Amino acid sequence: MKPTLISELFEGRKVAIARAVSTVEDRRAGWEQLLAACHPRVGQARRVGITGPPGAGKSTLTTLLAEQYLAQGLRVGVVAVDPTSPFTGGALLGDRVRMERVALHENVFIRSMATRGSLGGLAAATREVCDVLDAAGIQRILVETVGVGQSELDIARLADTSAVVLVPESGDSIQTLKAGVMEIADLFVVNKADRPGADRLRNDIELMLGLRTGATMKDVPAHHGVDLKRLNPARLAREAARQALSDRWTPPVLRTIGSTGEGVSELLDALERHFGYLEKSGTLQSRRRARLRERVVDAVEQRLRSRLWRDAAINEWLEGRLPALERGETTPLAEADALITRSVAAGTLTGNNG
Amino acid sequence: MKPTLISELFEGRKVAIARAVSTVEDRRAGWEQLLAACHPRVGQARRVGITGPPGAGKSTLTTLLAEQYLAQGLRVGVVAVDPTSPFTGGALLGDRVRMERVALHENVFIRSMATRGSLGGLAAATREVCDVLDAAGIQRILVETVGVGQSELDIARLADTSAVVLVPESGDSIQTLKAGVMEIADLFVVNKADRPGADRLRNDIELMLGLRTGATMKDVPAHHGVDLKRLNPARLAREAARQALSDRWTPPVLRTIGSTGEGVSELLDALERHFGYLEKSGTLQSRRRARLRERVVDAVEQRLRSRLWRDAAINEWLEGRLPALERGETTPLAEADALITRSVAAGTLTGNNG
Repeated sequence: MKPTLISELFEGRKVAIARAVSTVEDRRAGWEQLLAACHPRVGQARRVGITGPPGAGKSTLTTLLAEQYLAQGLRVGVVAVDPTSPFTGGALLGDRVRMERVALHENVFIRSMATRGSLGGLAAATREVCDVLDAAGIQRILVETVGVGQSELDIARLADTSAVVLVPESGDSIQTLKAGVMEIADLFVVNKADRPGADRLRNDIELMLGLRTGATMKDVPAHHGVDLKRLNPARLAREAARQALSDRWTPPVLRTIGSTGEGVSELLDALERHFGYLEKSGTLQSRRRARLRERVVDAVEQRLRSRLWRDAAINEWLEGRLPALERGETTPLAEADALITRSVAAGTLTGNNG
Repeated sequence: MKPTLISELFEGRKVAIARAVSTVEDRRAGWEQLLAACHPRVGQARRVGITGPPGAGKSTLTTLLAEQYLAQGLRVGVVAVDPTSPFTGGALLGDRVRMERVALHENVFIRSMATRGSLGGLAAATREVCDVLDAAGIQRILVETVGVGQSELDIARLADTSAVVLVPESGDSIQTLKAGVMEIADLFVVNKADRPGADRLRNDIELMLGLRTGATMKDVPAHHGVDLKRLNPARLAREAARQALSDRWTPPVLRTIGSTGEGVSELLDALERHFGYLEKSGTLQSRRRARLRERVVDAVEQRLRSRLWRDAAINEWLEGRLPALERGETTPLAEADALITRSVAAGTLTGNNG
């Protein structure tokens, strides 16, 4: 690591940002010192997760948001994560071209991240890359998760604000959205809202939200046997008013048309409203505290793993136990216990074994 | 755990199998003893991974294979894993109905597994469930990974034989199949082979395989500048002949039509040929040895995680460090090291802390 890298990073120079991000992502020499140096400066950027099924138009919305932030004079980072599919490609060419045009702006930094080894590792690496951008003075970080999967939720959980993007085509499967999606969503975006089925999708999401907050059950007298599908707009308005008086956040359901840019400024407003809510309610602090905790947990697990499995003596010992395992004379769990005991005794886990 | 569970499991009773599988999957009391009891009996079953993109017809092929195995008098297990998408459902209703009909057969055991927590955990749990089925005397275990993602590859790696199922619609994206897919594939299935583009897909896969074995580069003189797309059938035939003389396995590319069952018996033959190859070449032993090793590695990591994060003293200590972390006075990596040192000293990692 060049000694000037950190000072150039903190000045926000794009070349330094690129090098610092690669250093952390690829675990190059000095990555730990680099992250440690960034740590005190982390916490200024707003991190927005953009998540949703393939084809929902996430890349287009991300690009539109980046353009708006740039127009406001803000410095923007885009982290596009494709944790997934060995079977699908990434964004469509058209999206990429547009994003590449935005990438030329001096106040924007764009990085794509792909799976390397484990998924847990990807979520941790994404968070670290966001930390580097944050320390470099970037004010809005858009984390777009291109793929689908549990890992997407893990990555979305890293954001201050998570937007779940759906399209009318997702309508039929709204019932199959797993619980995790509802839990991470701070706002919903119905994209391609000029297509048939957009209103129904929006309605379906709002009904699910009513269920989620539990208010439906509490507020409707004699709710047993009530057909939740029939809850009317007045009911939803009442609920919204009730929520406005409490300090709970009810995820808004926004409509956008990525191809024309319609609804993007409303999306931007909703994001800012959510940032305000996070600060006022203390949620920002508690989320960031939870993230710090997770960072320690991840670091502990990473360190234990690398100390164990890069240790020649441990590997040799394990290799020697395999024949007995094959013969069924011992079990993987018994050998696991023996391995832990040995490695503690040898100082492997604390890194004190030479 | 009922004391008779293990003996009934080894007799192959379906009720006992179901209970044993749940015990392991949900980590119920006695799961470790149960796995330990299974361990010496593991290794008789053939494990076949069926993997591929959504909509490739994996469930239908799995059901057809199960029916054929049953017709041969074999005992069959089906483990359907859906590691993925918070945004999509599982198999289509039609597939399920057919599979449920098969499930009524006394010689078949079917289990669906969904994500619980971490993906790494899912791969480990899938392997353990296969071990239970294996110990119960099931002879063919079909592991169908319904979703897409890195985790799918991790799960496919657990199989003795991995079949990658593609459809003509995948044709355009064959170039984007990530390296991992080519590495796990012991055979390819072009399903829905009556659709346009099937021949091209098959051809594309065969070309990629030529590249993968490295033979193309070695055997074509002055290969520089050769357009690999133009390699001709004669060239591929020569390659196949060469492979037949060596003990390397060249993944065959099979054609099936799930809706009519066409090609399924050829698929079955190819699977048996691969089993034979695995035994003769010693690959079966080396793969199983590698799996045993992985089992120990997973058990070590699981144990370390649960011992650390279920320990009240450790959690309390970590909670107390968060304010200093928030103030930037220390870093997650420094706290991770401190936490490891403390937990080793307290005997937490070896489970000797009370």
